Formats: sequence, structure tokens, C-alpha cells
Amino acid sequence: MTKAFQEYYPKNLSHCYGCGVNNKQGHQLKSYWHENSDNGVEQTIAHFKPKTYHTAIPNFVYGGLLASLIDCHGTGSAAAISYKRANRLMGSEPAFRFVTAALNINYLAPTPMGITLKLIGTFSEIKENKVIVDIDVIAQEQICVQGQVVAVKMPTTMT
Amino acid sequence: MTKAFQEYYPKNLSHCYGCGVNNKQGHQLKSYWHENSDNGVEQTIAHFKPKTYHTAIPNFVYGGLLASLIDCHGTGSAAAISYKRANRLMGSEPAFRFVTAALNINYLAPTPMGITLKLIGTFSEIKENKVIVDIDVIAQEQICVQGQVVAVKMPTTMT
Repeated sequence: MTKAFQEYYPKNLSHCYGCGVNNKQGHQLKSYWHENSDNGVEQTIAHFKPKTYHTAIPNFVYGGLLASLIDCHGTGSAAAISYKRANRLMGSEPAFRFVTAALNINYLAPTPMGITLKLIGTFSEIKENKVIVDIDVIAQEQICVQGQVVAVKMPTTMT
Repeated sequence: MTKAFQEYYPKNLSHCYGCGVNNKQGHQLKSYWHENSDNGVEQTIAHFKPKTYHTAIPNFVYGGLLASLIDCHGTGSAAAISYKRANRLMGSEPAFRFVTAALNINYLAPTPMGITLKLIGTFSEIKENKVIVDIDVIAQEQICVQGQVVAVKMPTTMT
């Protein structure tokens, strides 16, 4: 079974509330290459079904959760493309691990509850120390949210 | 005791994961007027101490949580200033209730864990249907995150 990007993170950096495999209370978002991307562009994909309490107002998903999912899908995608561009296996050392420098989100339509959401990431800039990922959050074929993650290599001061 | 902005929200719109008083699993952020603002500008304030599991990597706060706090402090502040400009008591009907159209966040420095964070909101645009709130997230006098919330009146289709 394919491992998610986040499952390749070093164990001591896998505590993220949004996507860390070691954070039992967290969202544990899992991101993958989007193998079925039909436009020939490298894309990444994640799925997430919000819990009933992840609500904004009844029937709609909380925007802060959507921001969180975009954030983690962005930094995960940044790590994955960095390994790919370096022709290295994911998980090999030294690890590529990115953090978010900026997060810009437009909420285009209320996101309905009770549906497994799809996040699709596309790269708009790929540099060694900085990757920009554009992410659509899709509910039943409708783009509800568009976000951009400016991911930068984790500063050595953080580890 | 002063009630928080969010405690004036209509009961049927108080389920937000970030700030709803009816959401037991949520963050229950509480925003107030910043009475001690020393620069003569109308400002709002909220405090929040992240839980130990709200981590990004060990010792630092998860950016998605910070985005959530900014989001809810922004929409709460938008409601409060709207009541104030209309010379109406908070909680009076019809309610001012805002949702987020856009959320733009810059993570300036890693936010340390174990500290009660302070959010300060300042208004950069106040219109009847749209309020823009700039928010600093401060840990021990250091601004770690700066965010901007574009809040718009909740569409009638959402209620």
C-alpha cells in the first residue's frame, strides 16, 4: 500500500496536529501523488472527511479546519516534490521538511458537511528552499476553497 | 463579568469549532474589546493557550491552529464593530454574523508552546457588508504571526 508523504517524515518531526502520524488527537491528513491527474501536470491529492464537530455553522465545515488541511497538504507536497526533483527516495536522509511561511486562502463557497473532501495541489514555484503550492478544496466536484501555501525549508533553529 | 463577542452570537449560530460556545470539542476562542489599547485605536483582544497536542513540531504551535484563532477573532471583531457603528447593543436582533471570505497569514517566527498567546485585532476597513481585520498573534511581546481576515456578512443561504 502506498505510504503518504507524511508517513515518510522523520519520527521526531511527526507530531503535527494537522498531519503527524504521532499525534493521536490530530487530523492525520495524508497526502499522495495524484496519479490520475488528467492534465499532465504534477499534482498531489489528499482526502479528508471532517468530523461532525468541525463545523462553522450547522451544515457547513469550519474554515479554520480547511485552512489547516491546506497548510499540511502544502508542506507535505513541498517535501514530496523536493525529493522528486532531487531524484531521491522519500524518507531518505537528510529529510526534506518544510514549514509554512505564508498561507493565503479564499473561501469561494460554503463547504458542506458530511462529504469526503478532496484537496488537489499544484506547484506554482519550486526552488530548493521555497515551494509554492496552490490547493483546491473540492466537495462533490465543486471548488469551495482555494489556498496557496508558501512553504520554506524548516529553519535549523526549529529542530 | 464582560461577555465575549462570541457569547452574543445567536444560539443557532454558535457551533463553530473555533469559537462556538455550543461546541464542546472546539477551541471556544473568546474575543473582547481591547480596553487597554494604548494607541487610541479601536482594537480587539483574545487570549488562547494551545493544548499540548496543538503542536507543529515539538515545542512549536501548529500553524493551522493559529490560522483558526485568527479566523475566529476576525469574524468576532467584525460583528462587534458592526454593532458599535450601528449604535446597537451586541446580541440585539437582527444579529450581525460574519463569515470569512479570505484569510491571509504570514508566519514571521515559530510560535512557542506553553505560553498564553495574545491576539490583537485592528480594523483596516469597515463597511456594512465587509470588514477587514488585521490581527497580530503575540507570544511574550513577540509578534509571531500576522493575519488578515476579510469578513463578509453571512449569506442568507447559509442559515
